[in-house]
Amino acid sequence: MITGKNYIGKELSAKGSDTYHTFDPKQNSDTEWVFHQATKEEIDAAADKAHDAFQVYKMFSGAKKATFLEAIADEIEALGDPLIQAYTKESGLPEGRANGERGRTIGQMRAFATLLKEGSWVEATIDTAQPDREPMPKIDIRKMLLPIGPIAVFGASNFPFAFSTAGGDTASALAAGCPVIVKSHPMHSGTGELISSAIIKAAERTGMPDGVFSNLNSSGNEVGQQLVMHSKIKGVGFTGSINGGTALYRMANDRKEPIPVFAEMGSINPVIILPSALAAKGDDWAKQYAGSIMLGAGQFCTNPGLIIGIKSTGLDGFIATLGKEIEKLEPSCMLHPNIHKNYEKGKKELSVQGGTDTVAAYESNVAPNVAQQKVLSVNGSNFLKNPKLHQEVFGPFSIVVRCADASELQQVLDKLEGQLTGTILGNEEEIKKYAKIVDALQGRVGRIIFNGVPTGVEVCPSMQHGGPFPASTDSRFTSVGTSAAKRWVRPVSFQNWPAESLPDALKDENPLGLSRIVNGKHTDAKI
Amino acid sequence: MITGKNYIGKELSAKGSDTYHTFDPKQNSDTEWVFHQATKEEIDAAADKAHDAFQVYKMFSGAKKATFLEAIADEIEALGDPLIQAYTKESGLPEGRANGERGRTIGQMRAFATLLKEGSWVEATIDTAQPDREPMPKIDIRKMLLPIGPIAVFGASNFPFAFSTAGGDTASALAAGCPVIVKSHPMHSGTGELISSAIIKAAERTGMPDGVFSNLNSSGNEVGQQLVMHSKIKGVGFTGSINGGTALYRMANDRKEPIPVFAEMGSINPVIILPSALAAKGDDWAKQYAGSIMLGAGQFCTNPGLIIGIKSTGLDGFIATLGKEIEKLEPSCMLHPNIHKNYEKGKKELSVQGGTDTVAAYESNVAPNVAQQKVLSVNGSNFLKNPKLHQEVFGPFSIVVRCADASELQQVLDKLEGQLTGTILGNEEEIKKYAKIVDALQGRVGRIIFNGVPTGVEVCPSMQHGGPFPASTDSRFTSVGTSAAKRWVRPVSFQNWPAESLPDALKDENPLGLSRIVNGKHTDAKI
Repeated sequence: MITGKNYIGKELSAKGSDTYHTFDPKQNSDTEWVFHQATKEEIDAAADKAHDAFQVYKMFSGAKKATFLEAIADEIEALGDPLIQAYTKESGLPEGRANGERGRTIGQMRAFATLLKEGSWVEATIDTAQPDREPMPKIDIRKMLLPIGPIAVFGASNFPFAFSTAGGDTASALAAGCPVIVKSHPMHSGTGELISSAIIKAAERTGMPDGVFSNLNSSGNEVGQQLVMHSKIKGVGFTGSINGGTALYRMANDRKEPIPVFAEMGSINPVIILPSALAAKGDDWAKQYAGSIMLGAGQFCTNPGLIIGIKSTGLDGFIATLGKEIEKLEPSCMLHPNIHKNYEKGKKELSVQGGTDTVAAYESNVAPNVAQQKVLSVNGSNFLKNPKLHQEVFGPFSIVVRCADASELQQVLDKLEGQLTGTILGNEEEIKKYAKIVDALQGRVGRIIFNGVPTGVEVCPSMQHGGPFPASTDSRFTSVGTSAAKRWVRPVSFQNWPAESLPDALKDENPLGLSRIVNGKHTDAKI
Repeated sequence: MITGKNYIGKELSAKGSDTYHTFDPKQNSDTEWVFHQATKEEIDAAADKAHDAFQVYKMFSGAKKATFLEAIADEIEALGDPLIQAYTKESGLPEGRANGERGRTIGQMRAFATLLKEGSWVEATIDTAQPDREPMPKIDIRKMLLPIGPIAVFGASNFPFAFSTAGGDTASALAAGCPVIVKSHPMHSGTGELISSAIIKAAERTGMPDGVFSNLNSSGNEVGQQLVMHSKIKGVGFTGSINGGTALYRMANDRKEPIPVFAEMGSINPVIILPSALAAKGDDWAKQYAGSIMLGAGQFCTNPGLIIGIKSTGLDGFIATLGKEIEKLEPSCMLHPNIHKNYEKGKKELSVQGGTDTVAAYESNVAPNVAQQKVLSVNGSNFLKNPKLHQEVFGPFSIVVRCADASELQQVLDKLEGQLTGTILGNEEEIKKYAKIVDALQGRVGRIIFNGVPTGVEVCPSMQHGGPFPASTDSRFTSVGTSAAKRWVRPVSFQNWPAESLPDALKDENPLGLSRIVNGKHTDAKI
């Protein structure tokens, strides 16, 4: 049942008088659910509980934390159809997508549980004593990753499950040993409350301390800002816009004690289509890209917003097919009227820039909040001199850049900001022939793709979701995949520490059976 | 020979008319060397060269970069006595220290070379394709750490070798594949120039691109600020004051494209002396701590500036012995009149705080710039209410806090900011008995030490040198030990990438013989 209240730890709480509804974009009307915005007092209470819970939670073994994560997965599954109904109502996304995203979210939670049970991710590093070393004896030092404290997680509009309440930020922080306070996304606070109830149930069932998880409602910016500035919050996870993420990032850096903000923000995910790809299968790629641009109403972080090629009849053919194919596709409902409004605004703004041609524009009538797709094309020279064209339009929109030659293509790349992904369509010889172009692309992306589409972000250890600014605020970390847990820990060295009091990960006997670095060598042996 | 010029890549350059001398603190007079401050034009030229060099240098194998680092070590050794003479003249530190620090610096360079030759530090992570997976095939993804670009390194006043021109920041950045521009420390620009000449020679001898290293002189803040704000600089390493480091950190965060700043700043390195340590060997510890406080005229980042115990006759005895022992020690010369002036100022400021008693104060006449040691004591309650007493006084100065009981000791710890190190003196049972105190200490330090002194920072994989703010700006990384290279890289995923064009670290055949994570398992096997 959706109560509209906040979870301050396990307590439902509604102290504030500011309320808001979520919105059903398909019905184009408010939902019946009324949410109580968290008050300053409730934020403080959640932070205090998180701080206290941390003292207990951080001491738990990986195995114990894993039972919690697995219980969360089970409890989310147990929510059944009402969860899917809340999701589709609050997002306008279809049931299939809801089911898929739920599976991904549950799978993600279990993947972190597996990481914890295996345990080597804490990077245990041991240098044993050398009492006879000259000129000075060497003392025993052992290092491992330990959690940093309570984390504020901002739910994302475009992934009510996978990047929100129990999404990758929450799962990775809980795995790391950090309590989480979610600032629920105002577009899907009902979905968020249901998920929160599952997390709270799982916490109680597996003996986790009260305060290991809280969920705060808010329709504006204040709750989030207060969380980021709260002295008991030690890190922030965010997925959203460049403006929002950068503002939180700068705010956190200006704190008396700065804290890390991992904001995964905008990206236009450039795609470079090389001559062989145009010659051999330009039409196939055009079809695939029409689908990729339209996926989820273009509301994916890795939506291909920019396709770059060298002028040729092949490129002309690709553009024509892309236009034809994308116009055939049925437009779909966006998450919220505000997102739809911004989409329309961005689309219009870019369409009137000098030198742009319309390749495709869906113009039939549509229901409210449905995003009509659009594709533009522009010459490389016009693209180069107009930074407006380098901006993300969040939705089913893309620009094809027609470069005069490889050198202009290189210049286009050099002008681009940091990106989550970059894609090369071509053949293996072209990877070598256009080595400088490939290198320039690689230098500004977190993930580089050969012959594929950027949409679809696999949850696995080798995934990098995050790129140079402004794709994300810290390109050294990922928000997807089990490495995401590394954002919420810091290394601590134990020098000459009594064997019995060492954390298990650092004990001579290697009781957890970890892969460790001992005296410079990777090993899973005892000492 | 010391020319006083800047190294813009391999070119000696002196375009500016602003000049300064370095200072000989023992003679209390300027050295004969005149240094030309780098101009805006020279900074740009160094950044341009570094940017261009990066395109080449980043492609070099670990083995090739290792030859460069080893050549740097050799060329520094080959500088011989004139280097030691410049060091002692510009720092006032004794020859023994100069020799020891040179050994450490060379050893550090070679340790990074060893890391590169072994190669596994790039964290190669591979998830192979599963074309038959349901409901969706899984695509091949492979991830590794790649360098981020040119790095600005700020030389530290207190380690002319080990934390300056060819120190840990430079060695780790070059190891990571990043060109380095050093902003040489104005107190030892001559030493810096000699070291730079060795690096340039090594670069030429091993075929490194021009611009892989530059060295800029500056007596003020502008050159450093211009470097940090330069669009071609992608990261910053700094060791110095909280004010200086925090200013650079905030500046870098406010750039259009923020860049990481790893500033290792102040720390008072709290030491907790538990009852058993007082009973069993209070006098021994007092003697050892007298020595640790005085080491290098108290100019170490890990100097023990705060010793905390519970009121007892044992603690009184410890304080008395510490006072007696430290007064016996010969004071030594500080690095520079400004550092000496700041020391005297800080010492005076803290000595007049309410409730402080003088435990020891060296009062005999000393030569100019020599730091007279001082130790204060204060009750826990006075310490708690006076944050001035929590500040670092850079020099041979320490405060002993007498707490009423364990609970007050805990409160004192809870008041402290982040620290590089924390030390527990006691026995193994006390680690358990005072578990909350140990835990509180561990929560605010990068390295926790049992029965030892914090001075002496071992260069090894398990070392963590860096702690929660303000000990450093990013507690997730270390500035000492081979893990320091992780500061200058970011993960990049290669999706569905042609086998032949993959970096060697990610190839099926594992030609470098790395320890990798393949499909979730640590292995050094081929695929």
